Amino acid sequence: MREDLSSMHENLPSLTFLEKLTARWQQGHFVCVGLDVDYEQLPAIVKGQRAIEEAIFIFNRVIIDATANLVCAYKPNSAFYEAYGESGIRALSRTISYSQENFPHIPIILDAKRADIGSTNTGYVLSAFDQLGVDAITVHPYLGREALAPFLERKDKGIIVLAKTSNPGSGEFQDLLVGGAQVSLYEVVARNVAQHWNSNGNCALVVGATYPAELRRVRELVGDMPLLIPGIGAQGGDVAATVAAGQDSRGWGMIISASRSIIYASCKSDFAQAAYWATVKLRDEINACRG
Amino acid sequence: MREDLSSMHENLPSLTFLEKLTARWQQGHFVCVGLDVDYEQLPAIVKGQRAIEEAIFIFNRVIIDATANLVCAYKPNSAFYEAYGESGIRALSRTISYSQENFPHIPIILDAKRADIGSTNTGYVLSAFDQLGVDAITVHPYLGREALAPFLERKDKGIIVLAKTSNPGSGEFQDLLVGGAQVSLYEVVARNVAQHWNSNGNCALVVGATYPAELRRVRELVGDMPLLIPGIGAQGGDVAATVAAGQDSRGWGMIISASRSIIYASCKSDFAQAAYWATVKLRDEINACRG
Repeated sequence: MREDLSSMHENLPSLTFLEKLTARWQQGHFVCVGLDVDYEQLPAIVKGQRAIEEAIFIFNRVIIDATANLVCAYKPNSAFYEAYGESGIRALSRTISYSQENFPHIPIILDAKRADIGSTNTGYVLSAFDQLGVDAITVHPYLGREALAPFLERKDKGIIVLAKTSNPGSGEFQDLLVGGAQVSLYEVVARNVAQHWNSNGNCALVVGATYPAELRRVRELVGDMPLLIPGIGAQGGDVAATVAAGQDSRGWGMIISASRSIIYASCKSDFAQAAYWATVKLRDEINACRG
Repeated sequence: MREDLSSMHENLPSLTFLEKLTARWQQGHFVCVGLDVDYEQLPAIVKGQRAIEEAIFIFNRVIIDATANLVCAYKPNSAFYEAYGESGIRALSRTISYSQENFPHIPIILDAKRADIGSTNTGYVLSAFDQLGVDAITVHPYLGREALAPFLERKDKGIIVLAKTSNPGSGEFQDLLVGGAQVSLYEVVARNVAQHWNSNGNCALVVGATYPAELRRVRELVGDMPLLIPGIGAQGGDVAATVAAGQDSRGWGMIISASRSIIYASCKSDFAQAAYWATVKLRDEINACRG
């Protein structure tokens, strides 16, 4: 079955991040599963006698197999893997390879929140897009468009810029009123990305589900640009408010990310079924609110 | 000789980042060597038949041995190592271990420019401070103090926050005028870090040498807080202007970082001597301007 899928996909042309994403949206998929794996929290049946690398990879493989028909993207957060040093990085790399080989139509977003000055970013570009082989990456806006050129030049990839993040303290700088017009910094980031950073049509923005009013404002500013929306589930974001504020003119445009509420839906041996049903539930809730 | 040094340091109490740094400043050392190694640019004598990991590690070891008596810190930039996947990460890890074992009095700054929301940062904290074993890390301010708590709680480490970065386009957001008082965003970042983030006395700021007026302004705002100042050398920052603007009330407070102008001072077999003399020259230039 897996081999058939693989050979079926061998003849697919290489699709861009936006093309993969749009195809998933067309099929009614807006859930992004956050693969934020903490070895300590893995079900006993997965840990068994396995080493950290193997246990994390096996867990991700099972979660991916269980949810692949229901999602628009996977989003591993690099911090969870870097925490375990080399074995964590290998588990991340194997997870990405597994997904790309078996489900090449599902884009993978590396939530790494990188950004350095100019040419230095080339290292992160090589690491994410060429070594690990992901379709998109999250980046900090603070250094400006000029610094992020090595990311933005990759037309086939998604460059997802932090605008209004989901954490309680995100207002410290993001809500500051800026310039003569006294608009919030996150709005300036969203506007600049939409108007000046996106000449390759490969940009997207992060806006937390925990801030529906700000999500609505960003959607007004950026037209149909994709929005990565974390904060649903464990962080408390509301699905109906998120969809009402976040959908684009086509009822699409949303990458709604949930992690703990899906991957740890059960800590017992039925964790894969529990992840499946948690994803179905979220998919159906989202689709019931769209329109 | 190396073994003697190791055993000499075994009985040293574990020093904080700020204690190590201050001891180096007291001895007149303000140069930070940026270990930003690109395998392609290594001298032929280092590359030889060596694999990437070994070549990068050997190069760093030679540079560290040549310059350890002259510097206040080493600063490997993570992007350069991540570019080579697992072998790059191993070269980084071996470089840090080598320096910490043989020169434990010299602090190591991981220039990784990380920052995620709250508990997710724990992964980066574990990776940098516990797996790799560095003394300090650079972070983005955009998510605010609340998000960066897992970094800020590490009293023994240095948390170095980007304020005004050295790149030509850093003004896009950092120079935006904020609030009723219409001060620049980078000033608000510097002020908040000094007034609200630094309850453990472990914060520092990044200000590029390419912006001496902004460097002076940050120094006015933050008292004697350490400033990491990149942009000298290949990026064109001026030493006299940097020291005049950046020194604190004691004539200290500066971590003046140069990378290419030191590590690639020669691309021939005399690269270690060339790195030594380039570091001596910069150290003497800095000290001639202090006062």
